[in-house]
Parts: sequence; structure tokens; C-alpha cells
Amino acid sequence: MDIQDTICAIATANGGAIGIIRISGQDAISITDKIFYPVGKKCMPLSKKAANTITYGLIKNNEKEIIDEVLVSIFRAPHSYTGENSVEISCHGSSYILQNIMQLLIKNGCRSAGPGEYTQRAFLNGKMDLSQAEAVADLISATSAATHRMAINQMRGGISKELSLLRDKLLQLTSLMELELDFSDHEELEFADRSELKDIANQIEKVISLLTNSFNMGNAIKNGVPVAIVGETNAGKSTLLNALLNEERAIVSDIHGTTRDVIEDTINLEGITFRFIDTAGIRETTDAIESLGIKRSFQKLEQANIVLWVIDATCAEKQYKQLSEQIIPRCKDKHLVIILNKFDLLNENIKKSLENNITNKDTADCSYMSISDGIPSKYVTIPLSAKNKDGLYDLQQQLIEFTITPDMSQNSVVVSNLRHYEALSHALSSIHRVQEGLNTQLSGDLISEDLRQCLFHLTEIVGGEITTDEVLSNIFKHFCIGK
Amino acid sequence: MDIQDTICAIATANGGAIGIIRISGQDAISITDKIFYPVGKKCMPLSKKAANTITYGLIKNNEKEIIDEVLVSIFRAPHSYTGENSVEISCHGSSYILQNIMQLLIKNGCRSAGPGEYTQRAFLNGKMDLSQAEAVADLISATSAATHRMAINQMRGGISKELSLLRDKLLQLTSLMELELDFSDHEELEFADRSELKDIANQIEKVISLLTNSFNMGNAIKNGVPVAIVGETNAGKSTLLNALLNEERAIVSDIHGTTRDVIEDTINLEGITFRFIDTAGIRETTDAIESLGIKRSFQKLEQANIVLWVIDATCAEKQYKQLSEQIIPRCKDKHLVIILNKFDLLNENIKKSLENNITNKDTADCSYMSISDGIPSKYVTIPLSAKNKDGLYDLQQQLIEFTITPDMSQNSVVVSNLRHYEALSHALSSIHRVQEGLNTQLSGDLISEDLRQCLFHLTEIVGGEITTDEVLSNIFKHFCIGK
Repeated sequence: MDIQDTICAIATANGGAIGIIRISGQDAISITDKIFYPVGKKCMPLSKKAANTITYGLIKNNEKEIIDEVLVSIFRAPHSYTGENSVEISCHGSSYILQNIMQLLIKNGCRSAGPGEYTQRAFLNGKMDLSQAEAVADLISATSAATHRMAINQMRGGISKELSLLRDKLLQLTSLMELELDFSDHEELEFADRSELKDIANQIEKVISLLTNSFNMGNAIKNGVPVAIVGETNAGKSTLLNALLNEERAIVSDIHGTTRDVIEDTINLEGITFRFIDTAGIRETTDAIESLGIKRSFQKLEQANIVLWVIDATCAEKQYKQLSEQIIPRCKDKHLVIILNKFDLLNENIKKSLENNITNKDTADCSYMSISDGIPSKYVTIPLSAKNKDGLYDLQQQLIEFTITPDMSQNSVVVSNLRHYEALSHALSSIHRVQEGLNTQLSGDLISEDLRQCLFHLTEIVGGEITTDEVLSNIFKHFCIGK
Repeated sequence: MDIQDTICAIATANGGAIGIIRISGQDAISITDKIFYPVGKKCMPLSKKAANTITYGLIKNNEKEIIDEVLVSIFRAPHSYTGENSVEISCHGSSYILQNIMQLLIKNGCRSAGPGEYTQRAFLNGKMDLSQAEAVADLISATSAATHRMAINQMRGGISKELSLLRDKLLQLTSLMELELDFSDHEELEFADRSELKDIANQIEKVISLLTNSFNMGNAIKNGVPVAIVGETNAGKSTLLNALLNEERAIVSDIHGTTRDVIEDTINLEGITFRFIDTAGIRETTDAIESLGIKRSFQKLEQANIVLWVIDATCAEKQYKQLSEQIIPRCKDKHLVIILNKFDLLNENIKKSLENNITNKDTADCSYMSISDGIPSKYVTIPLSAKNKDGLYDLQQQLIEFTITPDMSQNSVVVSNLRHYEALSHALSSIHRVQEGLNTQLSGDLISEDLRQCLFHLTEIVGGEITTDEVLSNIFKHFCIGK
């Protein structure tokens, strides 16, 4: 794709009232002038008009056939999205008209743009770095407040700023290393005092580590936080799913093993999309289809960030004992909520003791005190009645609390891009080697090499001269045309 | 719908790179100022910016949460589409972002616009007449060069100009009638010389009549010109359809009566959409389903503007005789082409005589000389081989020639709107009564009443003070939102 070409593309979807064609490149304005006929008193060619102005007129083919009445906006380099001369033609949203204008532009010297080519040019012309360019695609596909916030933050340079600080620190560390090398050359001291260096390396490691770890939640938020609903048959998993979705999504019955397929659906809680996965109830069975369903239940549990283990409160102790060996080990790095369902069926004494415990619950970690049914207090336990929709609010708040960790607050940076995560993981390995080298009194030359590696991987994220065409094409091929 | 409200709507379809929100009304600019934060050196509120300029900045919720980076175009009354103050916000094409900006606008005093409300305001503010407003919707839905040309012509005031000339003539006739009335009062002459009046009335009638008649083709072009393919079983109708479409659309076989359903598909020839209707072959049959198919064939024939009667050239005379009584009377007001298919199977003598005749064909009416097979020369006859795709070009040219009548040339007005057609039909009846009154020496008072009626109906088309809210709502409810 030649960066010298003037490119054009339809930037709006088919079927609206208005259609927009974007033109960018050296000749954007002069090519448009060949097909555009301004209307009104102060008629003049676009090339004579001021930047950032709008002109009304006609698009014509061969000076006679009118294609449409349009508004044309002009932008002049470098003050445009791409940093090049740019034109936007706003016409009636008919694909016939849009195609005709595109044909005229191409006939007059434009080339049809590839996916993401405008944003790629913005990157190449220094209007934004690579992480910001990638955020544009994320922003367009954002469907919830949380994904939107992550994308806007990244597009506004959230990651870039963080990485810029990190790179400053790395450069500081590098120059201190060089100083040490100089010093050791001249003074022939073998072991310099490296406590300051270690200190800086630790700071760098901490930030890279935080960023790397944020990917787990960032990626979950981007695709919807997966929440697996597991438990024995007839504990009320499907009833809970329906209650959460506020619709009859899953078939419920009193018959054990009603749900055989894995049922998924999403809800949006305070701007975060949760992807609920209702699974087949876990029990010993000889039914082949049901067995297959149970096998899948465990697979889904392993893919989830949050596990809701639904227990029938009327036989809580028994159910806990039966499944804890299968479920607990699989929840090691996950958030686990033990749901005491059918709470409304408990006798008044147990209920009251439970309610007292809830009143005294430690709000800081949101875990309820253990109740007299053998479930250890270290898990978050929520009593509810899925059937009566009691206790759902507590559960929803708990889900939000799990997701909006301190890392996820308004202004902090959350990594949601796999490419960034990979680069960060490499940078983390490099800085770990630096730390190890400093501790084991490795020579400065070798440590410097790891420092350079770390810097390289962090620079990969924002891009620059080190970015290869292959990386660029991988990034922009997923963009839509016209962006 | 209160015309004083400031309205807003998403004007682009879901899913593009760019989304546009349109705001129009007294407070369009001041409301946008409440949520828009310009970025750059020469920051100032939109209300201080010049008209027809574009400003880059942020849309924010509560001054903190950034919704998007946008471009805002402002237009000032009366120099805008609606004739009111107007703003267009160009944002990233995410429906999450678009919905959020809409909510902010509504929170700050806008109302969500109804279908076609922008164009309705343009009409009410005198930016365009009713026929031009209607053309906007036609233009957006135009899918072929012919429909596009009709819509552009109408939007640019084609019908309006024609009607303006007609109304001038009607007013001239009215004042002459009044002169006659004055004259007869004073001089007590009963019978004035009405030849001048008759002359003008005839001119008016001729134009209204032409416009009314153009609807038949105008409407056909708008919906695709219906072309019925009829004939006996196994004459090659489906093979012809496939050849015209250049794909295997209909199932063809040597078995008589293969096609039972009516198969429809469109092709675009020189900018005109033709809607081909392949019908079941006509023959005596006892098969109930096939009988039903044949019944439908005749129905489709009656709905068509052009009929292609496919005859097997190897037994042309027989097939012509068998069906002419059923087909010919049904083609009274239609264009009929008799297609001599399987031309390649004829013996060389017949072929040669046929080819000679074709060379001598009268190009003016495009009808070929009769060939020695009993088909009268008054019909357009085209020999072809659907199987070998020979002769298709002649057929295509013939179809175009039928459609682009002298009325349809680049600049003439073609009526394609049912509402216009109805008004014109009423106007035609009125002018016929005027003509009759003039011929039968009816009193000027009574003739004047018909003249007023005629003028009223013509004015209905372009609209004005006579246009009722009911008419407006009927017209604009079919528009898309944002237009």
C-alpha cells in the first residue's frame, strides 16, 4: 500500500440517511475539485477555501449529470485525522450515490482505501502511537461502559503515558549501569554498590507486573466477564440464570438434570458485561448425554473468572461435602461465590441465625460468616432465593466488586490487547533477568543487554521505527474500511 | 410534533467507521455547547464560531467522563438543510457512543426527531416544496441510474418547474374567463369568442395528460420494469431467464412443465432495473399444481409492462396459432416481443431468409419483417438461441428502447409518485370539464369553478398553505429517522 496515494473510502454503513466518503492524501482537495461544483454566491474551488470549512454544492459526472447535492468538508495537512490533506463528502445515504461518487474519485486519481488505512496513516504521520491506533478499533466496537472506558483511556494515551514513564526509568537505569561500567573501567572496582539500581529495577518490575496482571480482567471485560454457574442437579442453577437475566432463558423443572446443554447469555451490570454460563448439574449418572454435559460443566468452570456454586440451602452441608473436592481445587485463581439457594425454604431458626450473621458481615471482603452447615467462612457465601428473586442484588453487587478491582478505577491503565500483553510479558521476563543479574552481581554488560530487551518490548507497544510492516498489517487488517 | 423543539437524531446506519448525529432548531448550537469541549489553541464555544466551520473537540458527560473525540460542524439559520440553526456531530461509529451522545443531547433539551422531521422542517421553512421533499426519500432508496435520475430531477425542482408553468397558464385562463364575465355583464353579450380560451385549455390538458401518462413508466422504473416471460411448455423460457441473468436461476430440463412456480429476478440494463418473471408454460394439463401455475402465468402477464412470448422456432406457426388467442388480447396496452427461440435448430434456408429480413428491419419501430411461419409482421419478433446466448443483445436493446421513451429523456419530467399521479388525475378530470364547458358554451362562473379545482390539485403536489397535517404526516412517516 503506497503511502503517497490519495485514498478514498465510504466511511458509513449502508442504509442511513447520510453517507460519508473520506478522501485523504496530497491530492485529496484537488481531486475533489474535479467533480465538485460549489453552489451559492461566493463560489470558489475548494483549493481556495479555508481549512476546516464546509461548502455546499453538487457532485457531477462530466459536468452534466448530477450525482447528488452534497456538503464537502476540507482539512489541510497536518491538521487532520491522518495528518494529510483530507476531504469528507457528506451525501444522501444511497449506496447507488456513494458507489457513483467513489467511481468518480477513482477515475480522477484516488485509490480505494484498505481496512484501517486512515488510522495507519495517522500512525505513520505521528498523529498517534500504535496503542492509540489500536484503541480506535476497540472504541468503535465498544458495547458497554467498561469497554468504552478502556478504549477511550487507551486512545487518549493512557498506556502511552504509563509506558513513557517506564521507559524514562529504564533509560535512567541504563545510564546508571553505564556509569558503573565506566567507573569499574577506570577504578577497577569489581562490585559497585547496586542498591539504587536494584531499587529502580524493582519499581519498574512492579509497574510492568501490574500492567501484565491487568490483562486478565481487561480481556475478560472486553469479551464479557465469564461467570460459570455450577452445582448439583436441581440446586436451582437455571432458575438463578433466569432470575439474573430477568427472562425465561433456560428451561427449568423439578426433574433432576433438566439442563444438558451449556446455556450462555450476557447481562450488563453498571456498565460491565457479564457472560453467564449455566452448566449441567454435576451428579453421578449413567446417561451418556448427561455425562457429556457434566464434563463440559467442568470445562466451562475452568474458563470462568467468577464461579457461582449453587447449593441447595436445605441440604447445604451434604452438597458442599459431595462436590468441594471437585470444585474448590478448580477455583484456585478465580473468584468463588457459594450461593445458598432456596433460602426461603429454611426453617425460621436457621434463617434468623443466618440473617444475624449477614448483618454482621465484614463488608470489607464481603464474605459472610460461616453458618452452621459446615461451609468454611473463607468463601463468599450469599443466601438467596432464585425463585422469589430475593438476594439477587447482593449477588450483583458482589460480581461488580470482583470486577472493578483497584486497578480498574477510572484513570488507571488496564491492558486489554493481546499484543500488548505479549510484549509486556516479554518485558517482564527481561526485567526479571535484570533483577536477578543485579542480585547475583552479574556484569553490567550482560545486564545492559536485558535492559535493552526490556525497552525494546515496551517500545513495541507504542510502535515507532522498530515496527515492521508485518506488525502493521496484522494490526490494521482487522479494522473496518473507512477508518 | 412541535416545530419549536430542537431535535436530534442519528443520521447514519449502524456499523460504519463514522457516525453522524444531526441537531436542528433554535437551540442546536447552544445545547451542543453544553456537552462539547473544543480542543486546540483557538478554543472558543461553538456559539462564537463562524457558520459552516468544523471544530475538533471532546464530548463529555459532567465535564469529566469523555464520551468521544469528535468533529462538530455548525450551520446558522437560514443557511442550513432545515433552514434552522443546525449542528452535525461526527463521532466514531459505535452505537454505544452514538446512544450516549443522544442521551446527553436529550438531557440538555433536545427532543429525539421523528421520521423525516428534518426534511419536513425544510419544507415548512420554505427550503423546498413538497415534491422536492418527497424526492429526498426516493433519492436515498434509488438503486439504479434511472430511479436515481428521476429522483434527482424531482429534487432539483423538475416537477415543480413544470407545474409552475402549468399554474401560470391556468391563472392566465382564469383571468381571461373573468374578463369574459365582466364583458358579458356590461355588454350583455351571451356568447363570447372562446377560441383563445379553448386553445389555452388544450395546451394545459396536453401537458397534464403527458405527465399523468408518464406515471405508468415512472412507477415501473421505480419498482423495476416488470417483464413477463410466457409461452408453451419447453419453449425455453427458463433457459432464456438464466441466459439474461447470466446464472442458473431457474431449473431447466427437457421435461415439459419443469417450472411450476413463478420465478422472479432483476437485472440492470443501462441503468434501468428490469424485473423478469419466468412463468409456468401454458398447455392443457390435468396436473392440479401445474394448472395453478398456468393460472398464475396469466396473472403475471397482466401485471407486466413488457411481455416476452417465447416460441419454439422449430414449430413457430403451430405455437403461435395455439396461444395467440389467449396471449394477444392480454397484451393490449403492453409491449409484446415474440421471441423465436431455438433459432439455431432451424434449417439453413429458413435461417437465411430470416437473417435477410432482419438486415432489412425497420429500425424506427424495431419490428422485424414477418417470416414465413405465419406470425404477423406487426409484432416485434426477435430470433435467438437462449441456449447459445445468441441474440440476447438485440433483446436487451429492445427492452431499453421500450423503456426510454421520448418522455424519459434526460431532462423531461417523469411522474413516479402515486400521490402526484392521483392529484394529476384529478387535475386532468377538472381540465376535461373545463374543455367540455368551453365547447358547450357553459357559463363562465361554472367553468371558473373547474379551473379552481384544477389549480388546487396541481398545487397539492408542490404543497403550501393548503397542505394539511394529515398529508404531511402521511408523506414523512415513510422517511427514515435522521433525514
